Amino acid sequence: MIRLAVTGAGGRMGREVVEAADGRDDVEVVLAVNRSDCDPVAGVAVDDAADFPTLLADRDPDVVVDFTGPESSVEYVAACAEAGVAAVVGTTGFDPEGEAALDDAAEEIPLLKAANFARGVAALRQAVREAVGALPGYDIEVTETHHNGKRDAPSGTANSILDDVEDVRSELTHRTHGREGEQPREEGEIGVHARRAGDVTGEHEVLVAGNHELLELTHRAESRGVFAEGALDAAMWTTGRDAGRYDFFDVINS
Amino acid sequence: MIRLAVTGAGGRMGREVVEAADGRDDVEVVLAVNRSDCDPVAGVAVDDAADFPTLLADRDPDVVVDFTGPESSVEYVAACAEAGVAAVVGTTGFDPEGEAALDDAAEEIPLLKAANFARGVAALRQAVREAVGALPGYDIEVTETHHNGKRDAPSGTANSILDDVEDVRSELTHRTHGREGEQPREEGEIGVHARRAGDVTGEHEVLVAGNHELLELTHRAESRGVFAEGALDAAMWTTGRDAGRYDFFDVINS
Amino acid sequence: MIRLAVTGAGGRMGREVVEAADGRDDVEVVLAVNRSDCDPVAGVAVDDAADFPTLLADRDPDVVVDFTGPESSVEYVAACAEAGVAAVVGTTGFDPEGEAALDDAAEEIPLLKAANFARGVAALRQAVREAVGALPGYDIEVTETHHNGKRDAPSGTANSILDDVEDVRSELTHRTHGREGEQPREEGEIGVHARRAGDVTGEHEVLVAGNHELLELTHRAESRGVFAEGALDAAMWTTGRDAGRYDFFDVINS
Amino acid sequence: MIRLAVTGAGGRMGREVVEAADGRDDVEVVLAVNRSDCDPVAGVAVDDAADFPTLLADRDPDVVVDFTGPESSVEYVAACAEAGVAAVVGTTGFDPEGEAALDDAAEEIPLLKAANFARGVAALRQAVREAVGALPGYDIEVTETHHNGKRDAPSGTANSILDDVEDVRSELTHRTHGREGEQPREEGEIGVHARRAGDVTGEHEVLVAGNHELLELTHRAESRGVFAEGALDAAMWTTGRDAGRYDFFDVINS
Repeated sequence: MIRLAVTGAGGRMGREVVEAADGRDDVEVVLAVNRSDCDPVAGVAVDDAADFPTLLADRDPDVVVDFTGPESSVEYVAACAEAGVAAVVGTTGFDPEGEAALDDAAEEIPLLKAANFARGVAALRQAVREAVGALPGYDIEVTETHHNGKRDAPSGTANSILDDVEDVRSELTHRTHGREGEQPREEGEIGVHARRAGDVTGEHEVLVAGNHELLELTHRAESRGVFAEGALDAAMWTTGRDAGRYDFFDVINS
Repeated sequence: MIRLAVTGAGGRMGREVVEAADGRDDVEVVLAVNRSDCDPVAGVAVDDAADFPTLLADRDPDVVVDFTGPESSVEYVAACAEAGVAAVVGTTGFDPEGEAALDDAAEEIPLLKAANFARGVAALRQAVREAVGALPGYDIEVTETHHNGKRDAPSGTANSILDDVEDVRSELTHRTHGREGEQPREEGEIGVHARRAGDVTGEHEVLVAGNHELLELTHRAESRGVFAEGALDAAMWTTGRDAGRYDFFDVINS
Repeated sequence: MIRLAVTGAGGRMGREVVEAADGRDDVEVVLAVNRSDCDPVAGVAVDDAADFPTLLADRDPDVVVDFTGPESSVEYVAACAEAGVAAVVGTTGFDPEGEAALDDAAEEIPLLKAANFARGVAALRQAVREAVGALPGYDIEVTETHHNGKRDAPSGTANSILDDVEDVRSELTHRTHGREGEQPREEGEIGVHARRAGDVTGEHEVLVAGNHELLELTHRAESRGVFAEGALDAAMWTTGRDAGRYDFFDVINS
Repeated sequence: MIRLAVTGAGGRMGREVVEAADGRDDVEVVLAVNRSDCDPVAGVAVDDAADFPTLLADRDPDVVVDFTGPESSVEYVAACAEAGVAAVVGTTGFDPEGEAALDDAAEEIPLLKAANFARGVAALRQAVREAVGALPGYDIEVTETHHNGKRDAPSGTANSILDDVEDVRSELTHRTHGREGEQPREEGEIGVHARRAGDVTGEHEVLVAGNHELLELTHRAESRGVFAEGALDAAMWTTGRDAGRYDFFDVINS
């Protein structure tokens, strides 16, 4: 049984993680924190995030799972590095400075960061690499859809897919976010479209088109539970590893 | 048998119109013009567009079908008004000045302009009006996909759909074309996404989402022939009408 | 505050209804029953369904919400009629005898039966009627997707959509469930396809195709909560009505 | 320049092949035959199929491209084997006897048979193998959509995909074609759904669902031209090979 801490426990994903942990035998939530006041989640009391370093020392978790914002996340991870507690980061939208702070922390602790903890997303990414490689010259457009409360665009997962595409098709160097007015498609362009609507959990679609045919490769999450379970799998896997940066592919392929 | 003239006969849609006319008994192509040099289309010789007014007088068509660009279209339609020849305009992307020029012409001749000549698109627009009206408060995002040679975005059809949505849901006042960076969805926003890829003939999708459910209402053209046939139906219908502006809905509902 | 009873409280939908009621101020669960042993749901004790008539008398609910199987449902509704308690029935798959039993009950109590309690499904059905009516001669295929535990096919909602289509297009008289081998499409045929996979909450898609174009009109439930909330809205609406049979459209249009 | 013969030249695909050949410099149509009377196709006269063996001797093609029916195809291929002319077979729906006849022919001539000549379909199949392998235990349903004139179901391409899936997931042993009535999903089942509507050129979708997530991997042909071009590529590739059976993957991977 690993001892788990959850940051942003009052947020959409933090709440899912606490609830998913509640339904498993291999993990116990020993600490839940949130920046603002927050009712208990799945019967677990939520503490004030301001006391996070002290609480880490008191409750002695094995690993922290963090779905917050990039600024908060950097602070939480620094505290983990200080305390020698492993970290699983699902937060997205870090700027280069934020990424550098994560690198620093990863010199002290095992730090697994992933844009997405669904196995199906890993399978999608692999399928996209295959298909894009097999259809040279075809145009690629990536469309993602999330609930209307999501603040950043495109999603971290979409960015990972775009990185994959550019890795396989090095001539694609320019991402276009939406089109308006006189704007013909250019050589080297990948279109990126971020839709925000209702309560959509998360959908990513890669369109590969040319030569009078097309592929649409789509992943859809039916509930945030799929991400929470994956994050817990990642927490199990990360606990006790050597310091360094890891990815969800490491969990799947191990 | 009506006598038809086709402008932009060397373009994608002009070519389709000439070919579709070739396969029908109720219409004869008596004039085809293009701005640049152009091989015969479906056995019909293509003349230089510079001589259009003279050719109109010589060949005496009943109606002109025009799929060109907004600037060319204004010139062609002015010549039609001068010559008293009916006009069917499938060109999109007019600015207010261009629209005013069409209005002027419509005082002399019957002028039918439509963003789309597919019956299915008319049915989609009606279905969208129904659904959007029945689901107040739900978020709406419009996505259209066309071949990589299309120059303007979004498509004229997408703009018609957006006008419809704003007509039914008057609180929606702001169209967002793509999203990038920190850009949460705002009140009154409709998302618009123009994808350009391969040879896609034309797809329009309206997403209506809220309350843990969503509708996706999609139209897809399987070939440009569907538009060409509809444009010819419109040409038949427009021939002999009173001067004035008409729409494809007039054809369908008559 | 209405007093609610829930049958099949241990099932997928019954559980959702109890949980949704727990989150609302206008309804209180005074009775939950299940055929087999069942843990408390959202803190509500679940009683043995065998004692349902006695429990109805004891707990005095205003209305019963029933998502069970057709045989159980007929028994529950008969007990409601006996006790003078309104009934909202979300169960599907009744044979003519079962339907007749519901009719009998509806002479004593208000009985609202619906295949689907999502507003979006009602909007879809209306949009489908519009589109199918506007495109005479086009082919229609209905595809629905549900989780792998669903026992009957097609879904009750799909059957309602099929009834709608046949109502608008009276020449469509024959439903084909899947195709295999030498089986060309026949005049008067509607294709029906029931997919069962994973945890899919519920998706219904109507394909309308002809003349080199097509419409796809799709509804997707993101979580069963949308049905549970709709069922509770229906329970509020039904309580205190005159005896008779009602439909979810009555709730939406009132 | 290879010398090409086309059987079933008056059919949907045969016509496309003749037209595609007309637009290429590397192939010349020296013979086109059809079972029933047929107007010239793209300027090529169509001969009576009854004289096929004689015509083969007279016109001396390098290779025959055959999109007909299984019975006709067996006769055409036997004539090719007799005459020593290579064969590319796009016909589907052979019974074991028919397959054996093709095997016999392939001892004399190079014979390439494929269910689909689109590169995108080959890419889809590879992506499906990847995804299905990466998501053990997930449910799989295959849906294909074709025009309302297609006689056999499911399509040859769908059968190839199903073979792939069963190859990767050997516990899947039972194909269910549509579902009706009380029919819960069983262990070892793959659902297969053949939709027939309008003029749809061809769409194949593989649904992989489990653990509150799903993948949809879809290929869509925008026009039959994509198959015709691929068949001509296959004809070029097959000409001059050793006797034996080949597949379109051989063309792509060479």
